[in-house]
Amino acid sequence: MIPTLVEDNGAIIILDQTRLPHEVVTVRIDSLAGVMNAITAMQVRGAPLIGATAAFGVAIALAEGAEDANLKLICKLLAATRPTAVNLIWALNRMQAALMPLPVANRTASAWQVAREIAALDAQANAAIGQHGATFLTRLTHGLNRPLNVMTHCNAGRLATVAHGTALAPVYAAHAAGVPIHVWVSETRPRNQGLLTAWELNEARVPHTLIADNAAGHLIATGQVDVVIVGADRIAKNGDTANKIGTYLKALAAQASDIPFYVAAPLSTVDVACANGAAIPIEERNPIEVRSLQGLDKRGQLATINLCGDSVAVANPAFDVTPTHLITGIITERGVVAPERLRDLLE
Amino acid sequence: MIPTLVEDNGAIIILDQTRLPHEVVTVRIDSLAGVMNAITAMQVRGAPLIGATAAFGVAIALAEGAEDANLKLICKLLAATRPTAVNLIWALNRMQAALMPLPVANRTASAWQVAREIAALDAQANAAIGQHGATFLTRLTHGLNRPLNVMTHCNAGRLATVAHGTALAPVYAAHAAGVPIHVWVSETRPRNQGLLTAWELNEARVPHTLIADNAAGHLIATGQVDVVIVGADRIAKNGDTANKIGTYLKALAAQASDIPFYVAAPLSTVDVACANGAAIPIEERNPIEVRSLQGLDKRGQLATINLCGDSVAVANPAFDVTPTHLITGIITERGVVAPERLRDLLE
Repeated sequence: MIPTLVEDNGAIIILDQTRLPHEVVTVRIDSLAGVMNAITAMQVRGAPLIGATAAFGVAIALAEGAEDANLKLICKLLAATRPTAVNLIWALNRMQAALMPLPVANRTASAWQVAREIAALDAQANAAIGQHGATFLTRLTHGLNRPLNVMTHCNAGRLATVAHGTALAPVYAAHAAGVPIHVWVSETRPRNQGLLTAWELNEARVPHTLIADNAAGHLIATGQVDVVIVGADRIAKNGDTANKIGTYLKALAAQASDIPFYVAAPLSTVDVACANGAAIPIEERNPIEVRSLQGLDKRGQLATINLCGDSVAVANPAFDVTPTHLITGIITERGVVAPERLRDLLE
Repeated sequence: MIPTLVEDNGAIIILDQTRLPHEVVTVRIDSLAGVMNAITAMQVRGAPLIGATAAFGVAIALAEGAEDANLKLICKLLAATRPTAVNLIWALNRMQAALMPLPVANRTASAWQVAREIAALDAQANAAIGQHGATFLTRLTHGLNRPLNVMTHCNAGRLATVAHGTALAPVYAAHAAGVPIHVWVSETRPRNQGLLTAWELNEARVPHTLIADNAAGHLIATGQVDVVIVGADRIAKNGDTANKIGTYLKALAAQASDIPFYVAAPLSTVDVACANGAAIPIEERNPIEVRSLQGLDKRGQLATINLCGDSVAVANPAFDVTPTHLITGIITERGVVAPERLRDLLE
């Protein structure tokens, strides 16, 4: 299993997620510009992984050094790469808080250490999410004489994190405990991160079925889904949750069919400065993501096809907000809570 | 403007919709096998157009003739091409009812005539739908100092019909009357018929914006959509409506944000033999539609790319059912009615 992010002698090696599932390629990054590009271009993606990558980005930038090594500027540049995922800001704030008090000469070595801690914290939090989530998934299987049907959206698996995943952590933990599970995987246009989910579920031998995003409502309405679990890019103080565009539609369908809808995320995803979902900035991404798509051509080579011309106007919001009243519970490293009880965990 | 379907000396010429919007190509079809393939492969698609094409298919099959020209068998073969669109069955029933009483020798000539009538009826019904729909769209613009934002799904425009479209007929009629309108076009994976909608809206100079299907909920929830209008493949007696997969999710979002959700369809789409949506058969199509996608390669040539391998399990339901309680009104050639009043129009 190739890790999403590892340290390598003053640099990081990442699994290039823009080429998955078609090609398994790692990239070594040893510059601030390289880290910024990796996040913006989505070579690394998923809120927790973005946070950890940015933390190492600070260390790399400080190591690049010379007179340009301004900690605040570095963090500002990294924070600007993706606007919605709050784990990015959380990780950068943590880096600044740890490094600012230190003499400039000591910061670089400490930066690597703090980045390692942030990465380790993510893996630990996700392992705990997996255990908490597996408990209620197992409970849901009682009385079923078939596998539990879990639906997810986008990729909130190990590829979106340093390890274990968020939404998929409970699936992996339950699967490891012998609970029969089947996962419905939405392809998640425009970037098709569902293919990443299918790829890693295959790697872990968890049964799954790929669907077009449009099929989610039909499957839920016809009783083919027992529970929906998604990740989160930012959770407001009141529990409103921003996640990959299309999440809200699944939450509506879950409520209409009275099945539970869970958000799985480490507490670093909670932004207490956001009173509610309306205050969460929604990233608008390049129209080319809707106008084109990448896959393998008939010779088996990575290729991009154009679905429509540049003259077609496109809107491409990358996230939507699922309001608290559609969320059954939030699975965190400290346990599963109703969204309106989230505040209790933070105090 | 190239018509979707025209008669041509004992054959039909269709606009090949599997190659739009990338290539504008017509195909001449002069055999029953050719007509069956055109419907199955979706060279012609859209419930009303499928019905009219099948009607001409009967005439073509009878003209191919000889001892194999069994009217019932022909209709059975054509009816099996697509299971959900009821206009197909409606048109074939109409052909059989008109031709069965005639001597075999007279049937071929009459078949062409009845097929022409069915095609003309579709164009007339859609023109009337356009007028009825434009009246309420115009009403919705009162007090707005910006264009009316209409969201549609799939393609229920002129390309889905003999002429005018169903869901887009009100848009075209209002646009022609000078009402400022902007249309949100969902790409409609897996077959991306949204690109057909963008193509024909461009042809008609109606402003529009293409989105990933996932974006519909966000746009509706953030007040960027005033009304949703979709077509229908089959409407049950109680008003439950089967339409392209993904329609139900838009209906849920419309209700959650308290904006109107309309279905536009000729009365030939109503199946009084279906008591409700649960009785409507949902077509499951080839997994390859989810696993691959067609577009233009970098040399500008039509090409297919594979998004994932054949080993990835896929579910591909082509339609979903929107229950009556999510539908504000059904726009028919006889006026706009609440779904529970649909029965009044049929009596």
